[in-house]
Amino acid sequence: MNSNISLAEQWFRSFYQTIANTDLSPWLQVLPAQLADWQKNQHGDFAKWQRLLAKFPSTEPSVVELAEAVRFGNATDISDYQQKQIEGLLRQFMPWRKGPFFVHDIHVDTEWRSDWKWDRVSPHIDSLAGKKVLDVGCGSGYHMWRMLAQQPELVVGVDPTALFLIQFQAIKKFNPDPRIHFLPVGGEDIPTLKAFDTTFCMGVLYHRRSPVDFLHQLRSHLKPGGQLVLETLVVEGDATTVLMPGERYAQMRNVWFIPSTAALTVWLERCGFKNIRVADIDQTSTDEQRSTDWMTGQSLADFLDPTNPNLTVEGYPAPLRATLIAEA
Amino acid sequence: MNSNISLAEQWFRSFYQTIANTDLSPWLQVLPAQLADWQKNQHGDFAKWQRLLAKFPSTEPSVVELAEAVRFGNATDISDYQQKQIEGLLRQFMPWRKGPFFVHDIHVDTEWRSDWKWDRVSPHIDSLAGKKVLDVGCGSGYHMWRMLAQQPELVVGVDPTALFLIQFQAIKKFNPDPRIHFLPVGGEDIPTLKAFDTTFCMGVLYHRRSPVDFLHQLRSHLKPGGQLVLETLVVEGDATTVLMPGERYAQMRNVWFIPSTAALTVWLERCGFKNIRVADIDQTSTDEQRSTDWMTGQSLADFLDPTNPNLTVEGYPAPLRATLIAEA
Amino acid sequence: MNSNISLAEQWFRSFYQTIANTDLSPWLQVLPAQLADWQKNQHGDFAKWQRLLAKFPSTEPSVVELAEAVRFGNATDISDYQQKQIEGLLRQFMPWRKGPFFVHDIHVDTEWRSDWKWDRVSPHIDSLAGKKVLDVGCGSGYHMWRMLAQQPELVVGVDPTALFLIQFQAIKKFNPDPRIHFLPVGGEDIPTLKAFDTTFCMGVLYHRRSPVDFLHQLRSHLKPGGQLVLETLVVEGDATTVLMPGERYAQMRNVWFIPSTAALTVWLERCGFKNIRVADIDQTSTDEQRSTDWMTGQSLADFLDPTNPNLTVEGYPAPLRATLIAEA
Amino acid sequence: MNSNISLAEQWFRSFYQTIANTDLSPWLQVLPAQLADWQKNQHGDFAKWQRLLAKFPSTEPSVVELAEAVRFGNATDISDYQQKQIEGLLRQFMPWRKGPFFVHDIHVDTEWRSDWKWDRVSPHIDSLAGKKVLDVGCGSGYHMWRMLAQQPELVVGVDPTALFLIQFQAIKKFNPDPRIHFLPVGGEDIPTLKAFDTTFCMGVLYHRRSPVDFLHQLRSHLKPGGQLVLETLVVEGDATTVLMPGERYAQMRNVWFIPSTAALTVWLERCGFKNIRVADIDQTSTDEQRSTDWMTGQSLADFLDPTNPNLTVEGYPAPLRATLIAEA
Repeated sequence: MNSNISLAEQWFRSFYQTIANTDLSPWLQVLPAQLADWQKNQHGDFAKWQRLLAKFPSTEPSVVELAEAVRFGNATDISDYQQKQIEGLLRQFMPWRKGPFFVHDIHVDTEWRSDWKWDRVSPHIDSLAGKKVLDVGCGSGYHMWRMLAQQPELVVGVDPTALFLIQFQAIKKFNPDPRIHFLPVGGEDIPTLKAFDTTFCMGVLYHRRSPVDFLHQLRSHLKPGGQLVLETLVVEGDATTVLMPGERYAQMRNVWFIPSTAALTVWLERCGFKNIRVADIDQTSTDEQRSTDWMTGQSLADFLDPTNPNLTVEGYPAPLRATLIAEA
Repeated sequence: MNSNISLAEQWFRSFYQTIANTDLSPWLQVLPAQLADWQKNQHGDFAKWQRLLAKFPSTEPSVVELAEAVRFGNATDISDYQQKQIEGLLRQFMPWRKGPFFVHDIHVDTEWRSDWKWDRVSPHIDSLAGKKVLDVGCGSGYHMWRMLAQQPELVVGVDPTALFLIQFQAIKKFNPDPRIHFLPVGGEDIPTLKAFDTTFCMGVLYHRRSPVDFLHQLRSHLKPGGQLVLETLVVEGDATTVLMPGERYAQMRNVWFIPSTAALTVWLERCGFKNIRVADIDQTSTDEQRSTDWMTGQSLADFLDPTNPNLTVEGYPAPLRATLIAEA
Repeated sequence: MNSNISLAEQWFRSFYQTIANTDLSPWLQVLPAQLADWQKNQHGDFAKWQRLLAKFPSTEPSVVELAEAVRFGNATDISDYQQKQIEGLLRQFMPWRKGPFFVHDIHVDTEWRSDWKWDRVSPHIDSLAGKKVLDVGCGSGYHMWRMLAQQPELVVGVDPTALFLIQFQAIKKFNPDPRIHFLPVGGEDIPTLKAFDTTFCMGVLYHRRSPVDFLHQLRSHLKPGGQLVLETLVVEGDATTVLMPGERYAQMRNVWFIPSTAALTVWLERCGFKNIRVADIDQTSTDEQRSTDWMTGQSLADFLDPTNPNLTVEGYPAPLRATLIAEA
Repeated sequence: MNSNISLAEQWFRSFYQTIANTDLSPWLQVLPAQLADWQKNQHGDFAKWQRLLAKFPSTEPSVVELAEAVRFGNATDISDYQQKQIEGLLRQFMPWRKGPFFVHDIHVDTEWRSDWKWDRVSPHIDSLAGKKVLDVGCGSGYHMWRMLAQQPELVVGVDPTALFLIQFQAIKKFNPDPRIHFLPVGGEDIPTLKAFDTTFCMGVLYHRRSPVDFLHQLRSHLKPGGQLVLETLVVEGDATTVLMPGERYAQMRNVWFIPSTAALTVWLERCGFKNIRVADIDQTSTDEQRSTDWMTGQSLADFLDPTNPNLTVEGYPAPLRATLIAEA
């Protein structure tokens, strides 16, 4: 590995090599140029974060757990000093939203108990063993590690946020598995590959101005017959119920269409998906999404009507999230 | 005028000259290249239609009526032979959908009584006198002639369909007013001009996969404070009611979102429009849209449930069309 | 004219209008986008220069002379104060290289006696009366004014240097003839128009890394049979004599190929030109190119070997300039 | 390897994998898209050639010789039938220009004795051991095999001609060395890589309309200090001698600049090359370039003046070829 190139360039080159001689090879027609542009547009923080990544001590985790939680190493593998050093570095990458992670018994207590959603959804999904898996909007990559437990051929997460790339790489330091990759691009930047077996997309659809175009894109990534696992905000209602909130929904900007599961099913059908079913539907609790020592800003409790937890502060129905599964 | 260039090129150059030294001048940054591409992609029919246009006899219409109907000339202005010749040529451009037109007393009896909608809507619209007006999805241009009655500075219709361009130019032969132009481009091909006073968009929104992007585009054409006149299919319901039909709606393919007027109002607000109101709402009757001698294919009566005219053949609510007015 | 747009935008829009309905109309497929980019990339000086242009007093020149010199107005047309004001403003646009100009008897004494070259070359050129004329690398536009004396339909000069655009517009203030235009683009930015009757290109060829591509471009601007007037540095020699100097030639950077007239003739033939002849060949004298009160930097005398005026300071043959004429 | 993709796609993917994690990785920003376009634009012959390639029998060459000649296998390794089959297939890819090749004792007797040039030039070149080597305009790839004898890390040939790709791959069947690759692109399609140790460019420069731009490109492929080996047509003369022939030179179309070695040295200096020297200069003999059983068309003897072998049929100096070596 060339030490004159950035860490990010090393990660990306490793991914190019991984896919060059596979069905994902056509991605190379656009990806290297996109990532070269992306790197040119990163500023001071990203360079600083890469320097911090280089400061993590090398450790030999005695345990790698993915099936029930994401846990790499125990406290006894390292010195107290090293544990403090690692925790200090991980805290430089706050806020941590999706997790939790356990690194040498450091508990990265994230805003979301993403493990709870995984436990509800994963029983409904086809086995990922030997599969090529894509996670669109992967955040810090929590679910990608849980996917890895099933021995896929490859797990690729995409999310344009630089901090999430860094969080992912910080965790990967403790389990440098060559099958798991993070690319800082948007789902809409991926060309028509028709090459993934399973595509996850959790928490993205309601941020898109054009959900129909987005569903078409998600389908274009999948092999014929491949599986989509789609999680998004929904509302109660029938096939003609779709909420578009005002400027903010639960204090989030940039929320557009929130369909009922029945309406979302129609949308998926129009985009060519088959065998559409609801795997999970759940009103988010303030236990599942809350402020922590690793995400000290406001969280769900602050976004709900103090007098009625079934309403947002804006008066809309409180966040209800459904996961639908369908085949391309 | 150079006789070595096509009629279409002459029309387009005339438009470039019209706008070159106005606030619409930035349109020249993209339009001539788009129209050059468009011309390269036209095939045999378009060349034939241009030759037919050259065969129309030169006449001197004794009357130009725009305020109550679109009527150019009387039968007595021309010979019987000429009248037959003109009618024969106009029939070469069938099917005629939006109208009616009266040309030297030839009644081009179109599928739609577009005059009825105009009469319902026009009282609610700001005066067009001295204004720059855009009509997105203008079809044959019927409404553009009615707009012209109000003495606007300029009326520009855009519609990518070549036949509509030809129909428009055939009618314009009898009233070659330099203030009225047709461009075969889509509304999404127009750059951000912020230069029109009034934009009409009738019968387009439900064909867009991304209505929010489309509304943003419509707003980008308007000056601050300019007026949008938006006609589209709607359904009954509250602010969370949006129908997405299956593959066909009233036999039309490519119909996506059909909101209630309340939902559409929310969409318009999210796109920055103000002072949004419903000017007209009307269930289309089989008198307003029907087969004629100039459009001999199937029409609305064929698209409705024979046992219940309030339903389409697919079982959806029969076409209900609303016109909303809003300010940018 | 809209007072909210820049002077430059006004000049360019006026040109678009001039060509929109002519054989030059295809230029609109690229030019407005190029000039919008160009304007975005101009910095502080250009804005300042435009403000200075607005400060020129309005005058009524009693004389317009183009045939023997470029002279607009006499001193007696204006007050002493106005004359000082105009001279002061013109001096803000120094250095002045190509001229001379006489504005209300202010003598803009430029580095070059461009009139001498015009007098040598113009007798050999086809009449420009009624013609469309292009001047590639027009500098301040001196020769364009001399061309205008012959009553062409249109004279368009192109030169990417912002200061030359400003100098041209400053002079044009005193003779705002609508037939003469300056566009800040390069000759290579012009698409294949095959629409000009005569193309001048003086002092550009030796600055091009690819003279053959450049000659092809010059031919692509001309109608079949149109005339090229090409002035460039040459050396003595036969058809295989071509000098490429080192980093500098007569202190100029960016000088590439300097052919003999015989070699240049072969190049022109290979590019499809016909009837190629040498109209003028002249070793530049230190009377024709010299420092003046309006161009106070170094000039030719400084670039020649002090002991041998037939050599440059680098030891190359002193500047010998030929004008060739050919037909496309 | 996926059997559903074309042979060409397999070759290209293998190259992407080879370079993905090296200093050549930035090439991926453009190459996969270029080669996808290239494949789309290939027609019937290329598909047929790929099918023929699949028909070559699998053999086990008992000998691989690269140092003195390009010889893979002996006749005794295979049956007479197989030998006839292989020869028949190789003849489907006629005309063969650069060689000779010996495949199981089949003598592919090419138009050129490219080995003679290699023997004259190779002693002057830096060792290629462990190097990354580029051959711009590699033809059938003959010289690339000779380069491979020196144990480079990688040899990449580029040439846009589809038949040469097929000839190369036919030969590579008998020595499938993973270090040698052929890409059907032009030298001008390669981005600025500054990554090769040695670049060969033989027989290309005189076909370029812009030799200076081409030399700049050749330099941009090389690491600082990397070596260029440049072979081209030259003429006798001093630093100002450059021949541009008419439409044809020795019956070749598209020949532009033919400099003296002294003039070419100046050009190389202007493009930033250092330590420029002439390694070989040789008037091509009709023994070195001639018609054969594998290239049955006209060859050098037909292109020379029958009464004076020092002149071409057009009366220019007969082909004189020089090889210059320089450092970037």
